[in-house]
Amino acid sequence: MSDIKFEQRKTIEQVEESTELAPKFDQDGLIPVVTTDFNSGEVLMQGYMNEISFKKTISLGEAVYFSRSRKILWHKGKTSGLVQKIKEIRIDDDQDCVWLRVDVQGGASCHVGYRSCFYRSVPFGEKSGSIVLKFEEKEKVFDPKEVYGNAPNPTKL
Amino acid sequence: MSDIKFEQRKTIEQVEESTELAPKFDQDGLIPVVTTDFNSGEVLMQGYMNEISFKKTISLGEAVYFSRSRKILWHKGKTSGLVQKIKEIRIDDDQDCVWLRVDVQGGASCHVGYRSCFYRSVPFGEKSGSIVLKFEEKEKVFDPKEVYGNAPNPTKL
Repeated sequence: MSDIKFEQRKTIEQVEESTELAPKFDQDGLIPVVTTDFNSGEVLMQGYMNEISFKKTISLGEAVYFSRSRKILWHKGKTSGLVQKIKEIRIDDDQDCVWLRVDVQGGASCHVGYRSCFYRSVPFGEKSGSIVLKFEEKEKVFDPKEVYGNAPNPTKL
Repeated sequence: MSDIKFEQRKTIEQVEESTELAPKFDQDGLIPVVTTDFNSGEVLMQGYMNEISFKKTISLGEAVYFSRSRKILWHKGKTSGLVQKIKEIRIDDDQDCVWLRVDVQGGASCHVGYRSCFYRSVPFGEKSGSIVLKFEEKEKVFDPKEVYGNAPNPTKL
């Protein structure tokens, strides 16, 4: 375990305008994380960290999330090989959200097999009725069955 | 109010592999939203939508969030003029997160005055001690006092 220290949140000015790292974790002890590809800028995934996983990410230089479905620390890529190497970490104004810019080993981040989890777009400008999603990625980068075997699918209905 | 229809979530295959829009809202009725600049790819902000604001965003083509601090629909830019014009909407694999790609009128998205809310980076590779944030944006794009006057600061400690 690392000995990295987060600061107490004392004032709005400290949180917004200073160089102190004083992240806010929600009532479940989590902070949302946006992960983008360092080169393409594409959003790869959105996940969560608890305090320990944020500290591990900082000290290790690889993305370590907290899995809400499995309720464990999740060193991304340990199973699949698709490790996310950190190129930059950013924190937002009120320090309740983290942005990771990463290089992905193997080029894919999505358990369904696509490069990005956001492989479908939502048409807009429609005023009524059903929405038909459009696949923006045409081919999977890997076969989830080969990589994950019979591990339970993390998607919850 | 729009008459856009979201589908019921029935199977994992429907949610992950079909063209049906069946978003998942959390126990508070919210879905997290990542907003990036269409041109630079920069993450501008992370917010939330409820069902109504997501439908309004789709029909209007401008970002409409749900403000958790004020508990109201939040048509971004109505006060500040910094409207976010939608260029693309993406949904993730399990449909519990939205990615908006936008053009920002006025070039800024952050209530502190910066272009992006993520104007500070977190050094990594450190194993212990305090972390000193680095300002990646050097100058504010606008003066928050001029734009928001004495409106309460949304940052919560």
